[in-house]
Amino acid sequence: MKKIVLSGVKPTGHSHIGNYFGAIKPAIDFTANDENLCFYFIADYHALTTLKNKQEMIDFSYDIAITWLACGVDPQKVVFYRQSDIPEVFELYWILCNVTPKGLMNRAHAYKACVEKNEEAGLDRDAGVNMGLYNYPILMAADILLFNSDVVPVGLDQKQHVEIARDIATYFNNKYGKVFKLPDVEIQKETATLVGLDGRKMSKSYGNTIGLFTTAEQLQKSINKIVTDSRLPSEPKDTDCALFKLYKLFADKQQTAEFAEKLKAGLGWGEAKKQLFEVANKVISPMREKYFYYQNHKSEVDAILAEGAQRARTIARKTLDKVRKAIGV
Amino acid sequence: MKKIVLSGVKPTGHSHIGNYFGAIKPAIDFTANDENLCFYFIADYHALTTLKNKQEMIDFSYDIAITWLACGVDPQKVVFYRQSDIPEVFELYWILCNVTPKGLMNRAHAYKACVEKNEEAGLDRDAGVNMGLYNYPILMAADILLFNSDVVPVGLDQKQHVEIARDIATYFNNKYGKVFKLPDVEIQKETATLVGLDGRKMSKSYGNTIGLFTTAEQLQKSINKIVTDSRLPSEPKDTDCALFKLYKLFADKQQTAEFAEKLKAGLGWGEAKKQLFEVANKVISPMREKYFYYQNHKSEVDAILAEGAQRARTIARKTLDKVRKAIGV
Repeated sequence: MKKIVLSGVKPTGHSHIGNYFGAIKPAIDFTANDENLCFYFIADYHALTTLKNKQEMIDFSYDIAITWLACGVDPQKVVFYRQSDIPEVFELYWILCNVTPKGLMNRAHAYKACVEKNEEAGLDRDAGVNMGLYNYPILMAADILLFNSDVVPVGLDQKQHVEIARDIATYFNNKYGKVFKLPDVEIQKETATLVGLDGRKMSKSYGNTIGLFTTAEQLQKSINKIVTDSRLPSEPKDTDCALFKLYKLFADKQQTAEFAEKLKAGLGWGEAKKQLFEVANKVISPMREKYFYYQNHKSEVDAILAEGAQRARTIARKTLDKVRKAIGV
Repeated sequence: MKKIVLSGVKPTGHSHIGNYFGAIKPAIDFTANDENLCFYFIADYHALTTLKNKQEMIDFSYDIAITWLACGVDPQKVVFYRQSDIPEVFELYWILCNVTPKGLMNRAHAYKACVEKNEEAGLDRDAGVNMGLYNYPILMAADILLFNSDVVPVGLDQKQHVEIARDIATYFNNKYGKVFKLPDVEIQKETATLVGLDGRKMSKSYGNTIGLFTTAEQLQKSINKIVTDSRLPSEPKDTDCALFKLYKLFADKQQTAEFAEKLKAGLGWGEAKKQLFEVANKVISPMREKYFYYQNHKSEVDAILAEGAQRARTIARKTLDKVRKAIGV
């Protein structure tokens, strides 16, 4: 029996290389292990809690699906689908609501953060909170439990969601008999320090990202903006800088060691940026090609996701039938 | 264009004659008007907020469906279905969560009543509250809006639910364009004073009910328990009593007038109870026959509800497609 690994990806606009090294690549590496059967899905209905613009929803959903395909998701291997193609998720979501104590939702981090913010601002605790945000952890539990997930690899900030899914599964099993498998949390190690153009963590909110699927020209331009110190060519450079850290992500060990040597020997920043571009573009360029191919062939993406949905629904249906039988519906 | 009238019925155990005259008969009378297209559904997933026993869920769901069929729901005319057969309801439910401010749910009567009770008892506000109960008005909005309901006939205690559905529809329409029709509330008049065996309102919680579909023998026994005063036969009797009020429900005007005369003329209580039984049994007996027929032919009930679900889903699908298009999913 393969281990079921489940992970959802929110459509939130173009990915940057921080997303690639921090989330996409580790998830794709996971799929290389034949002991794993990975369920990766486009969490479009999750995004609805905050994403209320129709066109962005359409564009971002395609973009994230295409990004993952371009980065190497093999739809023959991975069950790759859109959340919105699985109606069983939402029926299970309602069922789970009924075994979830409201107190559990009151303690969810995302909701608590909103309440704290509101209280600091002297507003009503629930100001600006919609019921999608509040119910979010239950929908996530439905996503996880529907596919008998063994492992949900998440970042530390998502750990509570898996714990809540375990709690909800336990409430249900205690009431109706053992129907759900309890998923394990697997906290993903930070694979690397993902620094941005200015040396801080790469993040859209800092405006310091390097887009993953821009043109080669734009990639070069972004790299040229990396903040460096004022050392002149021929002066030895420190490797504790954004440029070197970014280089290391794309290069192999030998290349990295050589690049460090060159910096110490006084390689100028301009030349260093060119070399970073070379190594980055070499990794990105075949993926970029796929990315633009799919952007121009969206019906192929639709077909891939539809095929994935069909595979996913076969399993979803089985679980939901068990659940319905247990509750007498 | 016919007016869409929608009403859900919770499976809550055997019906009594208070349910019949207070809810079932008025709803069936509604269907006689050819200007109405009635959607009546077994609200099994609503019941889940409180009904957690598998066998009761199964039995009560059949019982309520059979009761309504026996009382005269014509499945050719009425779209009669199980809520749990319409997956579109639950997908719409999630969507609507995202346009529903949490504050709106905080003000829902049923939730507020729980909070007050908890506070009086010195407990946590949310003690014993599950997320099904808290989200209930949103699921109800999904039920209503999915079928473009024009009218939702409800008792006064349910008025707020329809108002919430209107609010949610308005939030959605304001954000995404006019997709939903705003349903009208129609407060049902109390059709008659539905007194129980002891003269108080007939209610399961008072233990003063007369079962609708018991055997004729049990019906007679129940009627014999009606509390009367101690006036002897030949003494004139007052018509302001439970027995007369119940008689009036089953009899036509002429019969009622004659019965009043006889009571004034001194008809003994024992004889009066016999006459009440006659008139009640005459109304109930053809329905009772149907009731027991369907109890022994549940596959016919399944077929009727499946046919209803198919009709309902055709409309549900159209609405959901419009909604999905509007949000970009």
